[in-house]
Amino acid sequence: MSFVSSLESAWARSDSMLCVGLDPDPSRLPAPLAGRPDAIFSFCRAIVDATAGFACAFKPQIAYFAAARAEDQLEALIAHIHRAHPGTPVILDAKRGDIGATAEQYAREAFERYRADAVTVNPYMGLDSLEPWLAWRDRGVILLCRTSNPGGSDLQALDVGGERLFERVARLAAGSWNISGQVGLVVGATFPAELARVREIVGDLPLLVPGIGAQGGDVEATVRAGGRRMIVNSSRAILYAGGGEEFAAAAAGAARATRDALRDALHEALARR
Amino acid sequence: MSFVSSLESAWARSDSMLCVGLDPDPSRLPAPLAGRPDAIFSFCRAIVDATAGFACAFKPQIAYFAAARAEDQLEALIAHIHRAHPGTPVILDAKRGDIGATAEQYAREAFERYRADAVTVNPYMGLDSLEPWLAWRDRGVILLCRTSNPGGSDLQALDVGGERLFERVARLAAGSWNISGQVGLVVGATFPAELARVREIVGDLPLLVPGIGAQGGDVEATVRAGGRRMIVNSSRAILYAGGGEEFAAAAAGAARATRDALRDALHEALARR
Repeated sequence: MSFVSSLESAWARSDSMLCVGLDPDPSRLPAPLAGRPDAIFSFCRAIVDATAGFACAFKPQIAYFAAARAEDQLEALIAHIHRAHPGTPVILDAKRGDIGATAEQYAREAFERYRADAVTVNPYMGLDSLEPWLAWRDRGVILLCRTSNPGGSDLQALDVGGERLFERVARLAAGSWNISGQVGLVVGATFPAELARVREIVGDLPLLVPGIGAQGGDVEATVRAGGRRMIVNSSRAILYAGGGEEFAAAAAGAARATRDALRDALHEALARR
Repeated sequence: MSFVSSLESAWARSDSMLCVGLDPDPSRLPAPLAGRPDAIFSFCRAIVDATAGFACAFKPQIAYFAAARAEDQLEALIAHIHRAHPGTPVILDAKRGDIGATAEQYAREAFERYRADAVTVNPYMGLDSLEPWLAWRDRGVILLCRTSNPGGSDLQALDVGGERLFERVARLAAGSWNISGQVGLVVGATFPAELARVREIVGDLPLLVPGIGAQGGDVEATVRAGGRRMIVNSSRAILYAGGGEEFAAAAAGAARATRDALRDALHEALARR
């Protein structure tokens, strides 16, 4: 089954556009887990199990595991998601980008070692840097397009002959780069007008949208701009909703509230049309 | 000591612009090492020890270690280089790129866990994505500018208002982004005219130049274009110069020949001026 088909099933089954981002900051783990050798895995597993009913996907961010020498815990976490919540796609947020034989190794890391269903990739090196990823036909390749940070404008907003660089990336991603229907795009919720522009360019391509929650993106504006086929990520606002014994219940409450807010915003946006 | 000072000392001491790239492809390890649990470390250590006399730097490519679950071997390798060849900078080729708290974790991975002296970083997300790296003042941050692959042109060669995107990156890297003298650039040897253009823009910024050897870049043209302050990388042509018992001696021979070719080309280029 292709990544996009899996995602469509997950959207339908969960009735949710929420993706729970798994960014386990060692300095913010709940007190009851602190000091345990598997604290990162235990924390993330508890979050996953508490929020799975409200999420269309999970997105572990590899840097948090790598900085903590916890690659084994990341492997165990993704295996747990596949086992306990089958059909919920795992997007490995790694923002890799390299060429040829090296890109093949990165693809093996993400898809074979970690068994991710999709991965985030940086497009700066062009089409031949994407091909080793696209060779894994049942996996998704989600390209950075318009990122949620202020500095994203430094290069992405440059005019490249009548369109901005991120618009060119969107056009390529929906066109000649999307050889086999595996491509999605990262577009930040912090720039709703640009999200709307990307949606206009790419039709029904899946969009991974970070920036709501802790980064301040507005749910209603995001949904009006990006429509239905979005994977809307929230990490810190869910992970750290509560810090003590009840952290998982607090995360579930935050995930449910975000799922509901996204759903209400979608119904309202559709009703307006 | 800053990265650039370390590099200047290493250039002077080694009288070499050669950087030996450590891309240990598991399918190409020499027969005598095959099957050993520490084969990757043993292979790279032997290459390092055989070539250190001819190199100004080493550049391990992290994907090869990560795909093979060999992060511990990468740690051991870099520790070995620091111990056995002190003063020879280690550039971790990771091409990371992310924002805020996540970029801080990637910087911890590269600089604290692996103890790299410098790292390669993708500039697509802009200045605020670089700041967490630049906070490590004694380390180098080497930004992708003009990569050596054909697809590099897809975005990097786009006209962004009178200059190409890679020229803009070069201008920013030599100007407002180079807050504290830590920045270098990756410019492929496969496009000598563009290498010359980058050199014109950035003055004496260090350039990391992949693409000679297996990728076909020409040594004389590279040196004429990029001048003295280059870290010219060769990986496969050195690592796999010989495949049997004598792989380390073959690598040393290839490294010496490349060092000499670079040195001769530099002398010739300087004599012509």
